[in-house]
Amino acid sequence: MSYRIRSYTFEDFGNQVRLFHGSIAPGIMIGGFMVDLAYQNLPADSIFDSISETAKCLPDAVQLLTPCTIGNRWLRIINVGRFALAFYDKYSGEGVRIQLDYSKLNQWPEINTWFFKLIPKKEQNSQSLLAEIKEAGTTILTATEIKVKLELLVKKATASVPVCPVCNKVYQSADGFICPDCCSKILPYA
Amino acid sequence: MSYRIRSYTFEDFGNQVRLFHGSIAPGIMIGGFMVDLAYQNLPADSIFDSISETAKCLPDAVQLLTPCTIGNRWLRIINVGRFALAFYDKYSGEGVRIQLDYSKLNQWPEINTWFFKLIPKKEQNSQSLLAEIKEAGTTILTATEIKVKLELLVKKATASVPVCPVCNKVYQSADGFICPDCCSKILPYA
Repeated sequence: MSYRIRSYTFEDFGNQVRLFHGSIAPGIMIGGFMVDLAYQNLPADSIFDSISETAKCLPDAVQLLTPCTIGNRWLRIINVGRFALAFYDKYSGEGVRIQLDYSKLNQWPEINTWFFKLIPKKEQNSQSLLAEIKEAGTTILTATEIKVKLELLVKKATASVPVCPVCNKVYQSADGFICPDCCSKILPYA
Repeated sequence: MSYRIRSYTFEDFGNQVRLFHGSIAPGIMIGGFMVDLAYQNLPADSIFDSISETAKCLPDAVQLLTPCTIGNRWLRIINVGRFALAFYDKYSGEGVRIQLDYSKLNQWPEINTWFFKLIPKKEQNSQSLLAEIKEAGTTILTATEIKVKLELLVKKATASVPVCPVCNKVYQSADGFICPDCCSKILPYA
């Protein structure tokens, strides 16, 4: 094993994670290896977009290690609660999906315990867990070729005369996709 | 005007934005002043969570300037398409919402043209626009006290014996919130 995550050592990437995310979350460290494996499977000159199948941890690995961020829209979260990332060419849709290979976790008891939440988080030994994650590297991951149906990801056009899709009233377009009255019902504050 | 965004000069923050986001997007520069104004209105010792009312640009300002990231879940996107950010105490729900005050934009023609998309993006003079954003600072923003209904933001518990909410079949919990068959219908790749 090389123990490297893109241009970082495991420890240096951990420091970046601590600064950005607040702690060295195991999920982001594995996510780092997921991004690394994805790059090994993507053409070097590809301009790619990405999808995280979970909102937990993995989006931060992508944001730290690739040009994709939530705010520039090259990273999207489609939250189906799976520990998986997809990267694909934004023009052809061709790419790779990386996921944890659960069948290999029996060789890695700390990772297995963490992933399947077999004991409370407080009782998990985070040093042993991180040591296993480093040692396991990309060997617990699987890469699968994918072809993204780009037509399903077309960006919403902004309507010039907006009609609220909830109440059907016309409103100021500066007020968003939904009129202010209906927004106030969706947001958790008045 | 101080022209400062938290501990950064306007130009230094611009450099951080370029590194993270890929370009000095006007929306993130305004977002920087939004975060700055929010901090002026929050207690210094508050542990706060945040909500972005848009997925465009603003989440990256929050991620660069606060401890909140998408992956650590202290930042949530509730995408109603509005250019606004909320910050609130995670225990009391009390906080502040910052939005652009559209009524003040007539004094700032470049910002007005950009925000209301009055000309194609390519024709906008980005240097003049950034100069206006720097000069306007927080004066084009409004801060409103809010109280977030925390009960609407309770995290989903993970079911121990998962039943797919789409097809009602039992599946492996490691496979997410939804069974693999139904996931494949939601994700834009097979």
